[in-house]
Amino acid sequence: MTTSDDFRVWGKEMVDYISRYQDGIEDRPALAQVAPGYLLDQMPADAPQKPDEWNDVLADVERLIMPGVTNWNHPNFHAYFPTANSFAAVLGDMLSDAIACVGFSWMASPACTELEMAMMNWLGRMLNLPESFLFNETRQGGGVIQGTASEATLVALLAAKMKTIRQKIEEDPSLDQYDVMSKLVVYTSDQSHSSVERAALIASLRIRQLATDDKGSLRGDVLQKAIEEDKAKGRIPVYLCATLGTTTSCAFDNVKELGPICKEEGLWFHIDAAYAGSAFICPEYRHLLDGVELADSFNFNPHKFLRVTFDCSALWVKDRSALEGAFHVDPAYLKHNHQDTVIDYRHWQIPLGRRFRSLKLWFVFRLFGVEKLQEYIRKNVSLAKEFEALVVDDNRFEIVAEVVLGLVCFRLKGSDDLNRTLLDRINANGKIHMVGSVLKGRYILRMAVCSSQTESRHMTHAWNVISELATKLLADETN
Amino acid sequence: MTTSDDFRVWGKEMVDYISRYQDGIEDRPALAQVAPGYLLDQMPADAPQKPDEWNDVLADVERLIMPGVTNWNHPNFHAYFPTANSFAAVLGDMLSDAIACVGFSWMASPACTELEMAMMNWLGRMLNLPESFLFNETRQGGGVIQGTASEATLVALLAAKMKTIRQKIEEDPSLDQYDVMSKLVVYTSDQSHSSVERAALIASLRIRQLATDDKGSLRGDVLQKAIEEDKAKGRIPVYLCATLGTTTSCAFDNVKELGPICKEEGLWFHIDAAYAGSAFICPEYRHLLDGVELADSFNFNPHKFLRVTFDCSALWVKDRSALEGAFHVDPAYLKHNHQDTVIDYRHWQIPLGRRFRSLKLWFVFRLFGVEKLQEYIRKNVSLAKEFEALVVDDNRFEIVAEVVLGLVCFRLKGSDDLNRTLLDRINANGKIHMVGSVLKGRYILRMAVCSSQTESRHMTHAWNVISELATKLLADETN
Repeated sequence: MTTSDDFRVWGKEMVDYISRYQDGIEDRPALAQVAPGYLLDQMPADAPQKPDEWNDVLADVERLIMPGVTNWNHPNFHAYFPTANSFAAVLGDMLSDAIACVGFSWMASPACTELEMAMMNWLGRMLNLPESFLFNETRQGGGVIQGTASEATLVALLAAKMKTIRQKIEEDPSLDQYDVMSKLVVYTSDQSHSSVERAALIASLRIRQLATDDKGSLRGDVLQKAIEEDKAKGRIPVYLCATLGTTTSCAFDNVKELGPICKEEGLWFHIDAAYAGSAFICPEYRHLLDGVELADSFNFNPHKFLRVTFDCSALWVKDRSALEGAFHVDPAYLKHNHQDTVIDYRHWQIPLGRRFRSLKLWFVFRLFGVEKLQEYIRKNVSLAKEFEALVVDDNRFEIVAEVVLGLVCFRLKGSDDLNRTLLDRINANGKIHMVGSVLKGRYILRMAVCSSQTESRHMTHAWNVISELATKLLADETN
Repeated sequence: MTTSDDFRVWGKEMVDYISRYQDGIEDRPALAQVAPGYLLDQMPADAPQKPDEWNDVLADVERLIMPGVTNWNHPNFHAYFPTANSFAAVLGDMLSDAIACVGFSWMASPACTELEMAMMNWLGRMLNLPESFLFNETRQGGGVIQGTASEATLVALLAAKMKTIRQKIEEDPSLDQYDVMSKLVVYTSDQSHSSVERAALIASLRIRQLATDDKGSLRGDVLQKAIEEDKAKGRIPVYLCATLGTTTSCAFDNVKELGPICKEEGLWFHIDAAYAGSAFICPEYRHLLDGVELADSFNFNPHKFLRVTFDCSALWVKDRSALEGAFHVDPAYLKHNHQDTVIDYRHWQIPLGRRFRSLKLWFVFRLFGVEKLQEYIRKNVSLAKEFEALVVDDNRFEIVAEVVLGLVCFRLKGSDDLNRTLLDRINANGKIHMVGSVLKGRYILRMAVCSSQTESRHMTHAWNVISELATKLLADETN
């Protein structure tokens, strides 16, 4: 059992351990070099009956855990998209853990609800979001922290679904919800994140993944045609999830074309900018968000690119009553005297309980300031441009998508198998970590700038690793 | 921007702040004494452009945040159910934040997946769960950490729904999913948590909240009758969520009667022991879990009663393929070379991303040891028994449910309005915090023992507050 006196000592040792971990992360591999079962094979079958010594626990962190950690904040980690981290966010989350309140209603911890409202307004203003998405005197819009973009997409989809079901049953009371659901259609692009398809499956709704143009962008005419086809079949278009910054290639759907169609046809228009959203705090990237004023809901992940440690996904809606009313249950044990005048965030999300995550945002915003966060985005993008230039200079390779933010998509000129083998060798080599994807039917390699410790030299390093392995691979192929 | 040198200083100041907060929590109110808007009215409209000073941020925590915090770990906090906390869990979560990996697949951080598997087995063995729920060579069962019990209930419900839909369509390929869904029925009791009803709403399934006996327990004959009724109407019973330790009164459904019926009738049998589950690590309470061997899935919240800071909800299933297969999507950018042989937890939950929450469990188990955790449960229950004795000794009051664990349900003999007024006065008074509920049509007061700092003297204190306010209230009523 740990007393506050123990914690005064052990907590500070943990602070030192964390500092050393961050300072020395480059001495560890980016991708964990272990085989399946590495830890399970070393763990005792049962928990100890008596307390273990603190020093043994801390030693076991290094001995048992660290070898199996894929270090997402390693400067040579270039897989997926970044997951943000910062000491500022850790400080905020330490406080959140210490307070350990569960903020499902205003009353359950007023500070937890009100700081979240304030931070979602701060963040919205940093992005220059339309006022209709913010908390203000109209009492219509507002923002909420979700755990992940998957949950934000799902929550918006469920709100749209329930709103349409109610409307249709009101128009024709002979219908039941299954009659309506069987006709509903959700749209997204063939480039959107897998969680959009999964959200539609969870909601038991038909989904169409519409074809994108040669830049990976969903265009208005494609949506319009799909809607016409579906209406001709008696179906009811209900929801579009557009993407700003797709996972495979950071492509941008044409929201200015899509928005007016959604409005005209009565679809809920959701925009997922999970990765790219953070960049919109820079005026020079803000134009990529133009058209958001046409959306019903907008989401991005500060935990990807804005120094806020996972999990922190920001979702704004124009009509919060659609969220709050989708699955409203109000048992006696959760009632309180202010509930008609305040926000109870439990109605805005799938879980009931919620952590005090806005502290992370508050600490990051205050300890960085907006300018430093903008600088961080700019540095990250400029590193990607550096890497792009190295690829362009090597005519064995081709760039396969425009480099807009911190992601470079490229491939060896040649077969998919050749590129798959190259990626396998890159990851087996262990010096850098990347993942591949499939773009327009071709296998590609993705180099994402992820870590706050990534510098110019890491771009050169990554390119040298890739280039040398490519030389070896092409030699093997010829022999 | 915070450097590692800053963090070495500021992190330690935060450790000291947290220690002082815990040591001095009794000098703060249990329930925040603020009015709606208290914080929003004080916050600037925008984030700062330049970094603020650390000392100003830390001072603002005390000035702006703390007055609006409802202190769930205050010894006089007796509302809802406990949310756990411990220094050990804070230490584990600090490390999780520092590593900041996202463990959606084994490859994305092997340690994150394997420590969770190991901890779910440790925890399962602490509860003496049947081997069929654990990770072992059969490769069939296993456990996963969800954020909340709401999510565990929903995930199990969705797995059951998809399994039955597939079965029915296989039996009759002319059916579509909406034909099947329109016939499915979910059961739970009229005492189960509101999140069960909400899960059914989210899944678009009909739910019946069945009547409980005079102890608040769902019995086999009631379920059997409901199933017969529904089958006679052509409906398909699909899922039962039974509760061990209901929110209103800590009642226990009769799982030994319910289990065989579910098996016979082909229902997925889920047991929610969100609150009570932690107590089953004590041999003397383990009998309350008898019958769990009949369940398909079982869930409880270590973050309620087992010193693990929110969020940490433990879910075990016997047939993990039913979870993994419910909404399986497998995009190119998430594939890895080991995915056929390892656990990829992203298929076990609603979100894609996931934090390294098993570190909290590991730190708590090792720094406490099982015996200290058992002692903690026993102390908590014995405090509730002390409070019960005080209520019983005052013939103006009645105990309305058996006190099994750390919850005492009672009321003033008299009208619901009288009891509602008493609760309002208790919470307005500010010395202790409780919530009410409705049990068998009558308004009741709930006194939950919540904080690790609650001692015998706080039971006396709580009773004195309630008793004096009751005297005043009854005098007011007479005048």
